[in-house]
Amino acid sequence: MQTEPTEEMPTDYPLAQPHVRQMQGYVPGEQPQAGKFIKLNTNENPFPPAENVVRAIKDAAESHLNLYPDPTCLAFRRVAAEVLKVEPDWIICGNGSDDILTILTRTFVGAGQALRMANPSYTLYRTLAQIQNAETDVVDYEGDWSLPAQFYAPPSKVKLIYLANPNSPSGTLIAKREIERHLGELTCPLVVDEAYGDFAVENCVELVNKSDKVIVTRSLSKSYSLAGLRFGFAVAQPHVIAQLLKIKDSYNCDRLSIAGATAALSNQAWLSETLQKIKQTRMRLEQTLSDLGFNVTPSQANFVWCQHPRKASRTIYQELKEQRILVRYMSYDGWGDGIRITVGSDSQIDAMLAILKSILGI
Amino acid sequence: MQTEPTEEMPTDYPLAQPHVRQMQGYVPGEQPQAGKFIKLNTNENPFPPAENVVRAIKDAAESHLNLYPDPTCLAFRRVAAEVLKVEPDWIICGNGSDDILTILTRTFVGAGQALRMANPSYTLYRTLAQIQNAETDVVDYEGDWSLPAQFYAPPSKVKLIYLANPNSPSGTLIAKREIERHLGELTCPLVVDEAYGDFAVENCVELVNKSDKVIVTRSLSKSYSLAGLRFGFAVAQPHVIAQLLKIKDSYNCDRLSIAGATAALSNQAWLSETLQKIKQTRMRLEQTLSDLGFNVTPSQANFVWCQHPRKASRTIYQELKEQRILVRYMSYDGWGDGIRITVGSDSQIDAMLAILKSILGI
Repeated sequence: MQTEPTEEMPTDYPLAQPHVRQMQGYVPGEQPQAGKFIKLNTNENPFPPAENVVRAIKDAAESHLNLYPDPTCLAFRRVAAEVLKVEPDWIICGNGSDDILTILTRTFVGAGQALRMANPSYTLYRTLAQIQNAETDVVDYEGDWSLPAQFYAPPSKVKLIYLANPNSPSGTLIAKREIERHLGELTCPLVVDEAYGDFAVENCVELVNKSDKVIVTRSLSKSYSLAGLRFGFAVAQPHVIAQLLKIKDSYNCDRLSIAGATAALSNQAWLSETLQKIKQTRMRLEQTLSDLGFNVTPSQANFVWCQHPRKASRTIYQELKEQRILVRYMSYDGWGDGIRITVGSDSQIDAMLAILKSILGI
Repeated sequence: MQTEPTEEMPTDYPLAQPHVRQMQGYVPGEQPQAGKFIKLNTNENPFPPAENVVRAIKDAAESHLNLYPDPTCLAFRRVAAEVLKVEPDWIICGNGSDDILTILTRTFVGAGQALRMANPSYTLYRTLAQIQNAETDVVDYEGDWSLPAQFYAPPSKVKLIYLANPNSPSGTLIAKREIERHLGELTCPLVVDEAYGDFAVENCVELVNKSDKVIVTRSLSKSYSLAGLRFGFAVAQPHVIAQLLKIKDSYNCDRLSIAGATAALSNQAWLSETLQKIKQTRMRLEQTLSDLGFNVTPSQANFVWCQHPRKASRTIYQELKEQRILVRYMSYDGWGDGIRITVGSDSQIDAMLAILKSILGI
């Protein structure tokens, strides 16, 4: 007869650093792997990636997987440099743009220092500060989703500013001209996180030429339909990139993702066509949500942020989930809440809207 | 007429943290991408990965690359748990075991604290300490590649101990029994880095059951021929894993690598067969190097560490490189140097040995 265990497994581990023990950890959007949901919650692109991307990955799978990848991702940087009109040594690659954000935070922000972010915005920035045992200096967006001028002139404790642009959850864009106007006031680097930049009317890559305090980050997850591949990059002046390279893991991008990402950037025709489809669906989604009475924030991204005056956002989220539609419910302390709906395919959006109408009794 | 640039690009970036600016950065082994070299310098496996691995990756390339991967890598952890006789929640996955080492260092070692490592060993541990603005507390191996008992009882400043086992560059193994004897003395976690564990006669996974201070790390780069895929993992008690999960990037492993790694662990027959071939070649390499007059350290890994009494290691490295054979020359301050030769295929080793003979005038 076996004895029953008398001790419970411990839940704490006192040997971890105190600030780590206190952390909750970042909670990513729900990722049901079963495929029974219509997923409109984590801003994935509804379309499969380009055929040449899949082909490049399959070729790479048969070619020297036993050997380490190029630690500098030169093949990718050459193609991306051409697309972005910079030189390859202005680019550093990462295992998703989250890896790039981690590298940036570790390069610039030490324990007891701070990073600045807007609110509401991408909550991962706060987690990155917590991991560094650093503080988060939060500046609220104005009611019209503009930022006060002092956003760009933080106190000396702040060593890095994060600006998600387009922003999540709002989908709004701070104009390049507006950012450019404040470049002279910056006392620390400003990261313009353009994870959604391809969906917007303009971007800030050009500003990298004008100031070595500007660092632009990009992701292939959204616009290139490659969330499953994990590939992102940053653009900055070479002496900035040189510091970041010291912090990254040597082989942070694998052979398959380098091959896939290089093929993706090579196919700008696919990108244009896909962006066109998503922007058309976005326009239709915004219009229909407005017709249903939602307050809709006009979006420059591949998602739409909205609230309904007659029904709580959390309830809408829950009732959609019961009907196997996943959207993202987001609540920000002292600010408010809303639902963020990814611009899926036309049929996904139609299915979501039909259920939404029934939920609202329309 | 264009004007010549009058200013040089800056090389420093004063906005990075001071300890980052002072760093040199880790220098990985040379990775010529042209394929003109016989590469015996970074301990890659000479054989392609198993066919079922390549097939799994190609299938994954056609399946939902537009969607984020499972942030917990459950499919992999289930298979690995079965192979290692632990439960899935005793495992955390990483983008290569370097990612795992980064996560471990960030969880346990803060600025002004220290990590302990043996010398000579994997120099990345020192880089990981530098990135944290922490110190490295170094304990030299004895002449017979054993470690003094005090290795396991560091001063209070030390918050993490790294033991590469088998060690690089020596290829030697500290016996599991020896480590087990010192478990009671540990005041901080001991990471047993088993990147080369599959090539050795024994490993320390079992010790994870006996102490929550033991953390074992593994890589698929060497034994599974997947250096190009970037996949590694750690095994520890669940409350230890829970702390590490807060530090890792949410989606640190991509869909392709999860699929490939899961297929790799599922094919233990391929692993046994491959290990057998490499161990046979290793034996032959050790014997022939001895016959050529080298001092050869008996290896439990997929490389051999040696010096020749009549010719400088650096010269041997250089002359081999001129003949398009890459081995790793390694020099440790105050300790000495040597060359580390990866156990390649029989034909690669034969080609290397033939040139080595001519270099030595034999």
